[in-house]
Amino acid sequence: MKKGVLSRALFMLPLLALPLTASSCVDARSAINEEYRADVARIIEAVRSQGLQFEKLVELCDGIGPRLPGSPAGRLAREWAVETMRADGADRVSEEEVMVSHWVRGSEAAWLTLPWWRPLQITALGNSIGTPAEGIEADVIVAADFEEFGSFDVADVEGKIVLFNFPMRRTSRDMSGYAEAVAYRSQGPVVAARKGAVACLVRSVGTGPAGNLHTGMTAYQDGVDPIPAAALTMADAGSIDRLFRSGEQVRLRLELDVRTLPDAGDANIIGELRGSELPGEVVVIGGHFDSWDLGTGAHDDGVGCVAAMETIRILKLLGLRPRRTIRVVLFAAEEVGGLRGGNGYASQHAGEAAEHVAAIESDGGAGPMIGFSAAGTTEAGYAVLRDILQFLGPVGADELRIGGGGPDIGPLGAHGVPLLGLWASTEHYFDYHHSEEDVVENVDRDLLADQTAAMAVMAYILADLETPLPRISGNR
Amino acid sequence: MKKGVLSRALFMLPLLALPLTASSCVDARSAINEEYRADVARIIEAVRSQGLQFEKLVELCDGIGPRLPGSPAGRLAREWAVETMRADGADRVSEEEVMVSHWVRGSEAAWLTLPWWRPLQITALGNSIGTPAEGIEADVIVAADFEEFGSFDVADVEGKIVLFNFPMRRTSRDMSGYAEAVAYRSQGPVVAARKGAVACLVRSVGTGPAGNLHTGMTAYQDGVDPIPAAALTMADAGSIDRLFRSGEQVRLRLELDVRTLPDAGDANIIGELRGSELPGEVVVIGGHFDSWDLGTGAHDDGVGCVAAMETIRILKLLGLRPRRTIRVVLFAAEEVGGLRGGNGYASQHAGEAAEHVAAIESDGGAGPMIGFSAAGTTEAGYAVLRDILQFLGPVGADELRIGGGGPDIGPLGAHGVPLLGLWASTEHYFDYHHSEEDVVENVDRDLLADQTAAMAVMAYILADLETPLPRISGNR
Repeated sequence: MKKGVLSRALFMLPLLALPLTASSCVDARSAINEEYRADVARIIEAVRSQGLQFEKLVELCDGIGPRLPGSPAGRLAREWAVETMRADGADRVSEEEVMVSHWVRGSEAAWLTLPWWRPLQITALGNSIGTPAEGIEADVIVAADFEEFGSFDVADVEGKIVLFNFPMRRTSRDMSGYAEAVAYRSQGPVVAARKGAVACLVRSVGTGPAGNLHTGMTAYQDGVDPIPAAALTMADAGSIDRLFRSGEQVRLRLELDVRTLPDAGDANIIGELRGSELPGEVVVIGGHFDSWDLGTGAHDDGVGCVAAMETIRILKLLGLRPRRTIRVVLFAAEEVGGLRGGNGYASQHAGEAAEHVAAIESDGGAGPMIGFSAAGTTEAGYAVLRDILQFLGPVGADELRIGGGGPDIGPLGAHGVPLLGLWASTEHYFDYHHSEEDVVENVDRDLLADQTAAMAVMAYILADLETPLPRISGNR
Repeated sequence: MKKGVLSRALFMLPLLALPLTASSCVDARSAINEEYRADVARIIEAVRSQGLQFEKLVELCDGIGPRLPGSPAGRLAREWAVETMRADGADRVSEEEVMVSHWVRGSEAAWLTLPWWRPLQITALGNSIGTPAEGIEADVIVAADFEEFGSFDVADVEGKIVLFNFPMRRTSRDMSGYAEAVAYRSQGPVVAARKGAVACLVRSVGTGPAGNLHTGMTAYQDGVDPIPAAALTMADAGSIDRLFRSGEQVRLRLELDVRTLPDAGDANIIGELRGSELPGEVVVIGGHFDSWDLGTGAHDDGVGCVAAMETIRILKLLGLRPRRTIRVVLFAAEEVGGLRGGNGYASQHAGEAAEHVAAIESDGGAGPMIGFSAAGTTEAGYAVLRDILQFLGPVGADELRIGGGGPDIGPLGAHGVPLLGLWASTEHYFDYHHSEEDVVENVDRDLLADQTAAMAVMAYILADLETPLPRISGNR
């Protein structure tokens, strides 16, 4: 009881009373340590020795494969998830329907036609329109970045295919390198179309192999005619850039049979470990269940899904039933369209937002764990999280980063729910991400165990704390 | 003159007189140092500041692309090489015809059909026969290595598709990891066919990305029916292995339209820097001009070819004309068939073998330089080489490894010609080798300059020494 009283007291402290908050934290920390240390050790040990997270990933990714929203494989995968969670003994397994954007990829081809004929590898960007059936053939103009593109006259660009050949910077503790590079994928087509381009190509985003193709969403804008958008490999983008800058006339032919169909039915998948005292209060854990189609969505986001699914099985195995309910949510359609899964869940459960004590997402791949990111709680709440993270040294996950969460739980954050994100190194994540490299072969079994243990520990303690994490708005 | 007298004295010493040989070497070393130090510095500086080796590589690989023996692109590339060496001012540029194996790759496709349908990426191994037009569909049996395969009964294998899923070990100072792994590519189909397999698949050889396909030669054997042979990506090979070992029935469909056509006309390409005193004596330098077709043959072996071509241009630029002739040989058809280029050159020039004072090949990619490998000379000869290598510290190429050379100059070695090979780290070479990753994008401009400088320095000094390297047979 002491712990609970303290936590509630912390929550009620005004944010300005920092010295008092800080000193109270010390007490809270030791209380948490005492109570949970043994449980945490058991969870980590069980995940490492008996965890089936890797086997689940094999079944999902090697077994069923990529899972674009609206695709037949996506439906098969949902059936697998429901059956698997039932077999694992989850207390309530269900599907909550959402409608999703249904973009489909048909045939894709491109050729260099000048200065000589050569086939190119190409992949359409998600959401791209197709070319006319007869294709598009046009001269190419290459820009290193938006700044260089800004220096081009409309007359230089009009009627041409624009290639943005911006190389991504590798980072590990944040995704700033990705954020810079992905701007060309998401905004390039609109920027190019504004100066009259007939198609937009981008250097594949990522730090991965030069022959890799990277797909992912692009965006169009009202008032700007949409143009076909695709990625070349880094190798071909570099090659075309070198030819272009040598003064050659570079011409390219493009045939993309891709299109957006009417919205399709999909679902968020739910599975629970019912809370022992307050089953109506919930900690949501999960990731997104859909994936891009070039690989099998192993890192993005098979990993987050199986870590959440396995959390329930491991806690049941150990007889660790927390006070509140842990609810696995495997979100639909994070990759394509506007977060239909995450928005759908938040709106369908808006009435119970106050009973959602926290949401935890993993959507950054299974690199070596660093810790957790968190948002939407108070200084006192962050102090509690730091206490919990002290237990996660054995899996390398003991750092706290303020700010974060995950794309699918973001909409819950808007309802005041504290958000946490698993924080793993992304040093190699973008060698795989959205490409044919995002496969089980590139997932390390031990690192996936570390991630699963981190999620299970965090979910268990947050669901079991006598007083939940304070909300930043204080309106709970 | 002192250097020449000493070198000749060394060469004449009986091999058993090691102490005397060793002490003589000290004198030879200082003589070489004195004479060539300034030239070497000029060569390195010129390659770095004015070398066009990278531009040549761009023209060849980005410009013309892959160069399978007998292919139209191979012919275009020869024309480019002849024109380029003429423009560079080489003294004699010619083509020496050889006939080459003409293996062609048409369409290739594979699908997993059980436990579910899924397209696979596949590439036929060079020399493979095709499947019947209707394809082959059969159950799969997976072996980790030859040892495990040895434990299978004929009844287990008969009528099945065998997959060897042997992962390659990464090495850097030798190619032992490749040698182990490539055994499955070259011998797997015969080993599998002996137990009645209907096709043989191998995990792509290499340390490269999991989604990479690696091609390369396979071999058939008289008395063993040839079966179609192809490589899967590491990702798919791993995936099928995991499914197979989980007890699933794994079935696969294979359609390979590949075949060997009648031998085609090809040529070794020759370009020279005529010697000032002994133009009839020759140092051969080069690499092989053909390449596999998945990438553009940038590391394998565009690098060796442009380093040799640029050696002539740089020495001319500096007015450094050695006593003997430096002869660039861009060998045909190293990759496909039995070294038709290298064997052709050696047999066409057998009568002048005694006038070939050394041959230098680069065929290990443009990793960071380590030094040179050498074979076919005496202890005194190796001592001379060590003297020369002292100059190459600035490009990292100062180590000598006894034993080596290169595939295309090997046949010259059989005629007693001392052989040298450029020795670069292969730590990342097999991330690219024989795959779509072997492209300019993966070649480092500075490392290519280091390699070019190392080749130019070694060629220049060996062609200029008053007394050439001793031959091991002493029969010169």
